[in-house]
Amino acid sequence: MAEIVALKSTPAEGPVLAVLDKGILRLTLANPPANALSIAVMEALTEEFERAASDKAVRVIVLSAAGKVFCAGHDLKELTAHRADADRGRAFFEKTFTACATLMQAIVRNPKPVIAEVNGLATAAGLQLVASCDLAICSNASTFCTPGVHIGLFCSTPMVALSRNASRKQAMEMLLTGETIDAATAREFGIVNRVVPPEYLNQTVTKYAEVIASKSPLTLKIGKEAFYDQIEMGLADAYAYTGRVMVENMLARDAEEGIGAFIGKRSPEWKGE
Amino acid sequence: MAEIVALKSTPAEGPVLAVLDKGILRLTLANPPANALSIAVMEALTEEFERAASDKAVRVIVLSAAGKVFCAGHDLKELTAHRADADRGRAFFEKTFTACATLMQAIVRNPKPVIAEVNGLATAAGLQLVASCDLAICSNASTFCTPGVHIGLFCSTPMVALSRNASRKQAMEMLLTGETIDAATAREFGIVNRVVPPEYLNQTVTKYAEVIASKSPLTLKIGKEAFYDQIEMGLADAYAYTGRVMVENMLARDAEEGIGAFIGKRSPEWKGE
Amino acid sequence: MAEIVALKSTPAEGPVLAVLDKGILRLTLANPPANALSIAVMEALTEEFERAASDKAVRVIVLSAAGKVFCAGHDLKELTAHRADADRGRAFFEKTFTACATLMQAIVRNPKPVIAEVNGLATAAGLQLVASCDLAICSNASTFCTPGVHIGLFCSTPMVALSRNASRKQAMEMLLTGETIDAATAREFGIVNRVVPPEYLNQTVTKYAEVIASKSPLTLKIGKEAFYDQIEMGLADAYAYTGRVMVENMLARDAEEGIGAFIGKRSPEWKGE
Repeated sequence: MAEIVALKSTPAEGPVLAVLDKGILRLTLANPPANALSIAVMEALTEEFERAASDKAVRVIVLSAAGKVFCAGHDLKELTAHRADADRGRAFFEKTFTACATLMQAIVRNPKPVIAEVNGLATAAGLQLVASCDLAICSNASTFCTPGVHIGLFCSTPMVALSRNASRKQAMEMLLTGETIDAATAREFGIVNRVVPPEYLNQTVTKYAEVIASKSPLTLKIGKEAFYDQIEMGLADAYAYTGRVMVENMLARDAEEGIGAFIGKRSPEWKGE
Repeated sequence: MAEIVALKSTPAEGPVLAVLDKGILRLTLANPPANALSIAVMEALTEEFERAASDKAVRVIVLSAAGKVFCAGHDLKELTAHRADADRGRAFFEKTFTACATLMQAIVRNPKPVIAEVNGLATAAGLQLVASCDLAICSNASTFCTPGVHIGLFCSTPMVALSRNASRKQAMEMLLTGETIDAATAREFGIVNRVVPPEYLNQTVTKYAEVIASKSPLTLKIGKEAFYDQIEMGLADAYAYTGRVMVENMLARDAEEGIGAFIGKRSPEWKGE
Repeated sequence: MAEIVALKSTPAEGPVLAVLDKGILRLTLANPPANALSIAVMEALTEEFERAASDKAVRVIVLSAAGKVFCAGHDLKELTAHRADADRGRAFFEKTFTACATLMQAIVRNPKPVIAEVNGLATAAGLQLVASCDLAICSNASTFCTPGVHIGLFCSTPMVALSRNASRKQAMEMLLTGETIDAATAREFGIVNRVVPPEYLNQTVTKYAEVIASKSPLTLKIGKEAFYDQIEMGLADAYAYTGRVMVENMLARDAEEGIGAFIGKRSPEWKGE
């Protein structure tokens, strides 16, 4: 991975590597061994997601990590250092959880589909990253937990994402015990879509990314936005809203092209309009 | 199927066959090979559901389809033809998605339980039909997809029903890739309740329908309405609301009869009051 | 079980036994064979939950039952007797379903985690009790149903809890048919977390309870309350809210102690502050 990154991108200077190849932007947490979400890492990651949101060359985003830990969550040493502040850290803690919420919503609200590629431990806000992605594929060496109860800090922000993936009792078991689940259980809990052997992880993710990158970016944008909007509505409102979305989508050039190509039995050419 | 229909109903003239037998109304999409949801089909189907809603003789509704495709979704040729309209089709598209939302809610809001009987492909708005039913039983030859991304038209209305059956990542995998899942996966995703061999499909569905048809129609009406109402509420509101529902249900004649029969160890006789 | 209770508690006088041992409060429905939820049982149970809520000695609550039936739901004979009232029972039915809603929310809103320990049949409001607990562990001899349709009284209040555990089609299958599911299916439906052989049920539940009892009570209180609050919110609101919760949790003494202990590689000592 590091070699490929070195070949394709400018030399990495920050904690997040960004490599764009054939419409697939691969963001790699490059702050091992813990890939902890310090303010610097969260801001760098958010910046990459926001840049990708408006970059027409980016069609799909893959979020991966260097090393054996996908992401160990917030940077506890950084947080603890600020207990010496005059306000006992309040301002810094507020800054941290605001940055966290901004990052997670930059994934959910990103017009480009985001796929988590997980090979290793994802814990607390690290699990939250995985749960916030549209899709997640992990190796069978991956494990997941929300261990905040062990350190007196309940995983209250990670659970926002977790409880929108897993069922209530599944989420509560993870949150109350802090215990670690394996990849198969994470799939059963709805945190990941697929589990593959580590040696096939990259190619499986790339295959998914290529399939999605071959679709109309406008269509993906319309659909992803509508998905997360309608899921928070009652049924009648959801239908009223998505009905309007469908009409606008029908009137877009890419739908005319796509439907025309389908009827004419040819391949569509997307313009993103 | 066609023979039985011919024996029991007046000769079919429309795209939807309706056969009532022992309280079980079987609606069959009879517009093969695609059973596409043209405006005519959607309106005919909605009309049948609305008629059934107020027909005391109907206790349960089964929605099935003729041919190898359960339903291929909206009629793309009909939609495309209206691109030649002065408004590029806007008015017709609005009409289509309004008719679609009306149909789906005529299922969810129907006082009679609706069971989908699926044997074959259910795609886009066809999958939405299945997902909108209270129960769904399919043959192991059935497959499901939301393939709108292939043609530039995201399945934004189908996903309203899909995302209320499947988890977020499951729904997103179907929506973003457009790929087809098999019957076992559809069961895992919560889209269908049971998967059976094709030769047992009809008898399994009929058995479910008979069990439900033996219950008090009033009780089923009260419960189904309350189910979809309370699921959109917060917990405190849901309990306040269903508490009132239970009191009214207790005061209805059928509950008095049913509870009395249970205590007296005899069979209840429902009056639907 | 009865012997242990006799050894550790004052002689039981009411329909609910309460035994506190090492921070684990075990509440046992002791009204076999049905353990029916009469007004008296619901009020006694609610009182125990409310007492536990403010008792610093209680860290985790286990809800179990004596006999082969976990709980058969409301007391149909008590309900039926009030049909002779001048108002045909309306006031008593209102009292019953208000008491039921109060009890269920006393579990969900309890600051202490509640684990259901189920060995036998849980039906109607009995299933609702299980579904309302944060966690549930059952023996493989356990079965579950919402059989209200058999007696003309749809399980409209039980379904509030059921439909927040199981998916829509799973819940609807139970509600519309009234049929009984086994323990493995209950786990698949999200009603219970684990299924174990009867002879290991008590020790498994106790192990879970001990793990949770070893955590900071303040942290558990903060997290449990936030869990059920945020799950009813949209994503943006949920993040704004839980971000504030995290800041307050960080500023609590137990988080400082827990994080400090983690960094210092020692065991934390909780003060519950």
